Amino acid sequence: TKRYTITLLPGDGIGPEVIAVAKNVLQLAASFDGIEFGFKEMLMGGAALDLTGVPLPEETLSEARNSDAVLLGAIGGYKWDNNEKHLKPETGLLQLRAGLKVFANLRPASVLPQLVDASTLKKEVAEGVDLMVVRELTGGIYFGKPRGFGTNDSGDEIGFNTEIYAAYEIDRIAHVAFQTARKRSCRLCSVDKANVLEASMLWRKRVTAIASQYPDVELSHMYVDNAAMQLVRNPKQFDTIVTNNIFGDILSDEASMITGSIGMLPSASISDSGPGLYEPIHGSAPDIAGMDKANPLAAVLSAAMLLKYGLGEEKAAQRIELAVLDTLNRGFRTGDIYSAGNKLVGCKEMGEEVLKSV
Amino acid sequence: TKRYTITLLPGDGIGPEVIAVAKNVLQLAASFDGIEFGFKEMLMGGAALDLTGVPLPEETLSEARNSDAVLLGAIGGYKWDNNEKHLKPETGLLQLRAGLKVFANLRPASVLPQLVDASTLKKEVAEGVDLMVVRELTGGIYFGKPRGFGTNDSGDEIGFNTEIYAAYEIDRIAHVAFQTARKRSCRLCSVDKANVLEASMLWRKRVTAIASQYPDVELSHMYVDNAAMQLVRNPKQFDTIVTNNIFGDILSDEASMITGSIGMLPSASISDSGPGLYEPIHGSAPDIAGMDKANPLAAVLSAAMLLKYGLGEEKAAQRIELAVLDTLNRGFRTGDIYSAGNKLVGCKEMGEEVLKSV
Ligand SMILES: CC(C)[C@H](C(=O)O)[C@@H](O)C(=O)O
Ligand SMILES: CC(C)[C@H](C(=O)O)[C@@H](O)C(=O)O
Repeated sequence: TKRYTITLLPGDGIGPEVIAVAKNVLQLAASFDGIEFGFKEMLMGGAALDLTGVPLPEETLSEARNSDAVLLGAIGGYKWDNNEKHLKPETGLLQLRAGLKVFANLRPASVLPQLVDASTLKKEVAEGVDLMVVRELTGGIYFGKPRGFGTNDSGDEIGFNTEIYAAYEIDRIAHVAFQTARKRSCRLCSVDKANVLEASMLWRKRVTAIASQYPDVELSHMYVDNAAMQLVRNPKQFDTIVTNNIFGDILSDEASMITGSIGMLPSASISDSGPGLYEPIHGSAPDIAGMDKANPLAAVLSAAMLLKYGLGEEKAAQRIELAVLDTLNRGFRTGDIYSAGNKLVGCKEMGEEVLKSV
Repeated sequence: TKRYTITLLPGDGIGPEVIAVAKNVLQLAASFDGIEFGFKEMLMGGAALDLTGVPLPEETLSEARNSDAVLLGAIGGYKWDNNEKHLKPETGLLQLRAGLKVFANLRPASVLPQLVDASTLKKEVAEGVDLMVVRELTGGIYFGKPRGFGTNDSGDEIGFNTEIYAAYEIDRIAHVAFQTARKRSCRLCSVDKANVLEASMLWRKRVTAIASQYPDVELSHMYVDNAAMQLVRNPKQFDTIVTNNIFGDILSDEASMITGSIGMLPSASISDSGPGLYEPIHGSAPDIAGMDKANPLAAVLSAAMLLKYGLGEEKAAQRIELAVLDTLNRGFRTGDIYSAGNKLVGCKEMGEEVLKSV
């Protein structure tokens, strides 16, 4: 038997509900390959703020660092929205990403045939969408310095941030992106704003240079404003997209909404060597927290990504993916993806059905 | 008779074709109110680069400054795409915006009943969309300093830009936005990334403070990633959106594509006192340039915005808007908005039909 240590960070809102489901599915699916898990649940986000005064306690980060992978639910909520920056749940998430050095964020967005009607896009536009956004996650304007507040020469208050990329940061995310594209349809679109921003000009230059190491991958470049349009006009044109931290934040959310089933979408954030961070795309949904209404499938599919990208356990990962499809085929739907003729279930019941399908 | 001086900047690609149409429509529509125009055509963009070596010649800027309004076609093309930054057509556009101090960019995006099928969104989602993006245009990361290239401590190449806003810049765009919302449905959504960026925190603070001067306008705040999603999920929830330069670039393009008829969408960029800059949302479309295939209606509607926002000639502006609707009702369509049962026409013929409808 193989044994892995997993740090669970249930977080806030619907986080604990979906993590409870994902944990059970992960455990069962991996057991068939003789895999055992040691789970350690730690505080993170608003839950950590309330109990420890900081959004990412040191013990959480060190436990996460020493584990084989980290599974996060969701963080944030109205209660902490007006906190000062260093006391925001979001700041804890950024500290976790930086602390784990997970520079590459993989965000698949695909439209399942079973859920094509959930998209607000016309069926012929949404059908068959299957793309992957590779977002740089530990650099750019999220972390660039100098940043802060001050006054300008006229005594006026100013707020400022720095969008900055070093060649090595671009190179390493580009390698992840080319390798990701290689496992898919070998088409990579790099998104930047190189007609205006120097940081983007360097981005384009480095990505272009690295392309020569991947002659089998077809590279194209697109400006971010155009990419935001093309995702609406014809999302099927995209296979793998690589972009910086802030553009990736915007475009991956846009892409996920195009699928119409954001409650289904997982993500993986990986580093060069240490443990990766796996989490649903969706937020903490405080309005339905504790009501057993959340869709746990994004967390469940995040557990599948954890198996695949984090532990290299592809078979167990696939077992989860197939179980999710089977559960959908058997007609089970949480409220967010419900359509007439299917069976409306809560978070827990959906989890039980997935377990049956594993 | 009233007399206004208009600087025409046909620019590149389809720019000259659509400006020729817009000029004729502008002239005819305004003539009924005894308005006369002095038009002065100047070089700009790639056209200027080829003839003068710079994308915005000094004479163009000074002529524009001394006119009552500026009507621009489009700039850019493959030919100049790999130029150095100071020799890019885009740089000329940024210099023009800065030179005219047009800090407020108004970008309407509405779905006309006649064209609802052109949207890739389902009819019930697209129908009735009518929103206005107010984008800050002369600040933020587009113009912030320091910017450039360098090497970091490890000798690695870096590229960097500065996202920076001063209180006065936020205040003045906020006033434009609140006043714009007031003339519409009195709902304003301010979009930022205040959970991460200091520049956005100041943005949110100032917009919130200014709201007290507009008690009749309902203000909400939204993070940019969520806004990118909500535009796809339910664009009708928005009336007026105000945001910074780079987020506005991305979201206004996304919003325009949601209408499905980007060839129809105009924009106005206005300053505190000097002449405004009016231009279609669409680019120079080099692939169809000179083929009489372009849709001139975005340029024509930009001329209407010029009359309304630039000259205060609301009656003449409305005459143009009604003429465009009438032309669509009579079934004339350029290729980009063509659907079965309508009459396919080129750029020139579309212009002639609009003139008949004026
Ligand atoms: C919560 C927030 C800081 C975060 C981000 O902007 O990265 C979120 O939007 C995401 O995309 O994971
Ligand atoms: C051409 C480019 C510099 C410009 C911008 O980014 O502002 C364009 O995309 C626009 O939105 O008008």
